[in-house]
Order: sequence, then C-alpha cells, then structure tokens
Amino acid sequence: MKPRALALLHYPVLDRRGDLVASAVTNLDLHDLARNAVTFGWDRFYVVTPIEEQRRLAERIRDHWCRGFGADYNPHRKKALELIEILPDLETAIGDWEKHSGETVVPVLTGASVRGGISCEQCLEMNHRQPLLLLFGTGWGLAPSLYQHGWPALEPIRGKGAYNHLPVRSAAAIIMDRLSGSARCP
Amino acid sequence: MKPRALALLHYPVLDRRGDLVASAVTNLDLHDLARNAVTFGWDRFYVVTPIEEQRRLAERIRDHWCRGFGADYNPHRKKALELIEILPDLETAIGDWEKHSGETVVPVLTGASVRGGISCEQCLEMNHRQPLLLLFGTGWGLAPSLYQHGWPALEPIRGKGAYNHLPVRSAAAIIMDRLSGSARCP
Repeated sequence: MKPRALALLHYPVLDRRGDLVASAVTNLDLHDLARNAVTFGWDRFYVVTPIEEQRRLAERIRDHWCRGFGADYNPHRKKALELIEILPDLETAIGDWEKHSGETVVPVLTGASVRGGISCEQCLEMNHRQPLLLLFGTGWGLAPSLYQHGWPALEPIRGKGAYNHLPVRSAAAIIMDRLSGSARCP
Repeated sequence: MKPRALALLHYPVLDRRGDLVASAVTNLDLHDLARNAVTFGWDRFYVVTPIEEQRRLAERIRDHWCRGFGADYNPHRKKALELIEILPDLETAIGDWEKHSGETVVPVLTGASVRGGISCEQCLEMNHRQPLLLLFGTGWGLAPSLYQHGWPALEPIRGKGAYNHLPVRSAAAIIMDRLSGSARCP
C-alpha cells in the first residue's frame, strides 16, 4: 500500500443554506481525525483553511499538544497531533503530499451526497498504485467546484434509513476503518 | 434483529491515572453518538451520569435541539437528539431498556483494553436473540467493576500499530458501522 493522507477542508465548503463559506476550525475535529489517522497508520493530516487567524488557532492547538504542556501531559495525543499540517489551500496540500510521497496525487472526494462513487475496494486498489489523499469537508460538505476536477469520489456511508447527516468525525472514522481491511462483520 | 441501544457512561470510568471518576459531559459526544445512532437505526441512546448538574446540562443540550430554537434551525439534529435519555446510573438504564424492549437485557462492554472479547459476528448473533445494550466509557474507559458482572465485552478496534487511543466518538461510529452489516472492504 502506498502512503495515505487525509485533508479536512474548511474552504470551499457549503453551509446549511447551500452557500459557499469558510467554516470555523473545530478543536475536536483536529483531535479526533488525528487520533483516527495514527490508529490506522495514515501518514499525514492536512487541516486546510484560507483564514490566517484560523490557521493560527489550529497551530496553537497542535503546538500545545506537541510542544507545550500537553506534550508531557498526554504523549499519546502528541503522537496523533504531530501528523497535522496546517495549510491555506488544497493546492498547497496536494503539492506537499506529492513532494512528500514523490508521486502524482489524485485526491479522492468524500461526501454524504455523492451519487455513485467508487467503492472502498476500488479506493484500496487505487491506493496500491498511488498515494492516497482523501478529502473531507466541514460544514455541510465539500463545495460543488471540487467535483469539477474529475477526481474520484467515495460512495457515501449508508445507514439503515434515509438519514445521512453523520458528523465528519464519524464519517472519517468509519471510512478509515473500512479502508484498513480489518476483519469485518457479515 | 432485536432493538439496539447504546449507553455512554460518565461513571464509573477511569481517568488518565487509573483513578475512578465521574467524567464531564462533552457536548459533541451527545451530538455525534446520537447522529451515529439514528444513521444506523438504533433505538435509544442513554447518557448516564450520577451528577445532577451534569444531567441538567445534558438535558439543556438535548432540549435546545429537540424543543428550543435548534428544533426549527436544524430538524435533522432534532431527529438524532430525540434518541437521548439522560439517567443517573446504569441500573436505571438497563431497567428502562428492559421495560422498553420487553425482554431481559445483558449489556455488552466496549473498551480499548479488552483482552479477547466477542467478535462483531458474535455480537450480531446475540442481537438476533435479545435486545442489545452497548456500553461505552468516557474518560480513560469503563471501570474494572463493570467487568465483574460476567457481561460479554466486544473485542477492541485494532489499527495498524500499537496505538489504541481512539476517541469514544470514533470507536462508537466504527462499531455501529461494523454492526450494521454494510458492504465492506476486503
């Protein structure tokens, strides 16, 4: 398997009215996705926001746990948050991931409203051939503009009924588990 | 399949030093686990804490989204948080779930440090015969006293390495997905 990274985008994403917005960084998103990433052996976690103050906030959170008081208080958290890279836009994240992995990167989109989309198996097959960069949207999901690059999108998580409003924290945990190839239920 | 419920215990749980504590209610635990529960068709979500002020806080959160401003603002959230029952102890939760389901309930424990434990398949088989009540611990996990009832425990989520510090929000999402019997990756 080639290396794996995820990116949590705070822009371009939609709000509840379907308007294009830059969403606010959520402390627990950083912790939860970083802990998922280190658990499942992912290599990098990009936190992407164009707003400088929000990047500074994310840096303060990361640095508290990686260098500050938190690093001694909870070394497990340090190990997770060390995977975080905070960047202003997706292009920079793709560039960084291509530089790090030494290969061309084709991002894979995720979202509750994806129609069709590739299966986990297909995503794993892709990841056998090339590094993975999985994109998660905050707010009400990744903006339509991101779907115009021709990048593949992962089929949504289907529950029991029509309800499709999982938190990004839950969706990311489930997808990373599904892509881990662990022993599964029937 | 018989009905399913989960309980998030804030007591008896351990803190980072291994001491027995009552942990604080975390707003996003309530939202995330409720949204997981409604997605995967679970019937009830017990939030258990012996501290009256903490129960009042949890009730305020739930009622804001189920009856207050939040109910109009985001009906999806209302549908999720309506599954929440806030109770002072596990015994009361078991009693309520037995009354609701009309059957005897044997809780199933979860925890990162479980040795052995039943598989998802075995848990599903149990759930074919009897209602499920899955127990999640906050803080550093369910207290040892809970393991002295002879109740089954679910085998932990294994990642790629030795790191086993998933947030309870992620662990619950992954376990509920695994128990949903969705199409899986190899």
